[in-house]
Amino acid sequence: MSAPRDAVTVFAPASTGNIGPGFDVLGMALAGLGDTVHARRIPDRKVVIREIRGDNGKLPTDARKNTAGIAASKVLKLLKADAGVELILEKNIPGNGLGSSAASAIAGGFAANALFGSRLSKADLLLPCAAAEASVSGGYFLDNAAASLFGGVNVTNPETREVISLGGLAGAVIVVATPRYQLLTARSRKVVPKRVPLASMIANCSRACAIVAGVAKQDVGIFGRSIVDVVVEPARAPLIPGFAAVKRAALKAGALGCSISGAGSSVFAVTRDRETGGRIGDAMKKAFARARLDSVITVTTIDPDGARLIG
Amino acid sequence: MSAPRDAVTVFAPASTGNIGPGFDVLGMALAGLGDTVHARRIPDRKVVIREIRGDNGKLPTDARKNTAGIAASKVLKLLKADAGVELILEKNIPGNGLGSSAASAIAGGFAANALFGSRLSKADLLLPCAAAEASVSGGYFLDNAAASLFGGVNVTNPETREVISLGGLAGAVIVVATPRYQLLTARSRKVVPKRVPLASMIANCSRACAIVAGVAKQDVGIFGRSIVDVVVEPARAPLIPGFAAVKRAALKAGALGCSISGAGSSVFAVTRDRETGGRIGDAMKKAFARARLDSVITVTTIDPDGARLIG
Repeated sequence: MSAPRDAVTVFAPASTGNIGPGFDVLGMALAGLGDTVHARRIPDRKVVIREIRGDNGKLPTDARKNTAGIAASKVLKLLKADAGVELILEKNIPGNGLGSSAASAIAGGFAANALFGSRLSKADLLLPCAAAEASVSGGYFLDNAAASLFGGVNVTNPETREVISLGGLAGAVIVVATPRYQLLTARSRKVVPKRVPLASMIANCSRACAIVAGVAKQDVGIFGRSIVDVVVEPARAPLIPGFAAVKRAALKAGALGCSISGAGSSVFAVTRDRETGGRIGDAMKKAFARARLDSVITVTTIDPDGARLIG
Repeated sequence: MSAPRDAVTVFAPASTGNIGPGFDVLGMALAGLGDTVHARRIPDRKVVIREIRGDNGKLPTDARKNTAGIAASKVLKLLKADAGVELILEKNIPGNGLGSSAASAIAGGFAANALFGSRLSKADLLLPCAAAEASVSGGYFLDNAAASLFGGVNVTNPETREVISLGGLAGAVIVVATPRYQLLTARSRKVVPKRVPLASMIANCSRACAIVAGVAKQDVGIFGRSIVDVVVEPARAPLIPGFAAVKRAALKAGALGCSISGAGSSVFAVTRDRETGGRIGDAMKKAFARARLDSVITVTTIDPDGARLIG
């Protein structure tokens, strides 16, 4: 709890769902990429989105259709707030597969709570914000929402909705290649196999556990080389032009591991330092270009803190 | 490395493979239960088992057919030893599903190495000892061998044979109920489904990751309540008379979680203190008795150290 404020600025990071083998289970927050929300109290008991910047006009400014507005509304209801909220969204997420709608939901919900004295904890905010995202994305997935809210790497259980936060991983450099290629989550989910061979389940489960162990031991090597997904990546790879070549290029340039970020089309790779990260990014960009796709490269780290006030 | 010795005594703990949802991936060492091996150097370059105690005459004393003898042989070969080993095995493992053959292999291999100056590391010993177990049990599984060797909770990858040791979990009390009921691993493996629904894979993977996170955070609550296996336990449960009632009784008596230990027929439960553990054990014993099975109850903890010299 803290004093109510007339205006706040909040940052909620973008995120990579699945982290390779942890389909619907693992997610990690990405430093630097994300939503910045400027929120102020207004007398009317409603939520208004005054402006959205950085989305090229793609996102709805109708607060009932935008995850930031929906989450802010849900939080105001929980708080029984006697006033409303006006939001300005600044999107800084280069494309698909980076938890953009989750970051908006978390930023909107977190900002509304902060305006009214932060009476709800982060744990309280998770489900209303995830529900806001679900009402737009069509699926109730926690991996991106938990990462954006809590930061670091998280284990989520989509059935029990339990989240375990593991914190960040110092020394891990994440390279994200985002092609200019729209891949709808619905289409990307449709190709996921309904049944999985036992050996594939074991392989993915072992790697997902190793990713958790890597974070626990702060061991970037274990973390990076465990990004091997034999279940979902093979099914989704054909939906992303050039994916196989991009992954090959990343690994050849020194990445410890590489896979699809969330439902794609972004692709991420892990390494130990920014210099190698830069080389990996160049290699991925060239590989996407050979598939006739322009792409945006981001060399970043895991955001350990998640949603926070920045003003 | 250390000085060669004429005689050593080694303890290698029993273990629980899978820990519920981590089929072929997770394992934990059990304090107190296990193999004690008295080993001494003999001039002949061979391995001899002089005696086996505590097995009711069931295990082969032919060193070429006993995992302790086979592992000792493999280690002597690796060491290019100029002498042999005589072993006396003391089994203190109440029945099936507790990594008995793995504990023998680890104890035998560890003892042979210790007699010749411990020139091999634990990491060096893993694969020869696991291979010794495989030559008898018919499958190359690392979960029990890694737990017995390294102690604590381990993540294993049966394909890459990588092992990540997470150490112990202070405060976790493990209750093991071992019915007098022979369940062959081969039969128990046969019923495991070949293909798994995606939702079940996600449920098990999330729980397995949570178990790792529970150990990393030293949180017995997370660890215990994550022992939920929707893939393998339902298939194996019908092979263990009374299992459903035993599990129900354990949970009713205060267990955080309960599942089959390894391939069964032992059943394990997790709680926070020995007093509750005693009550859980009584309840499990009574439930097995109602299924007309006598059982041995062990209330113990996770062995954090694994194989070690004790004399």
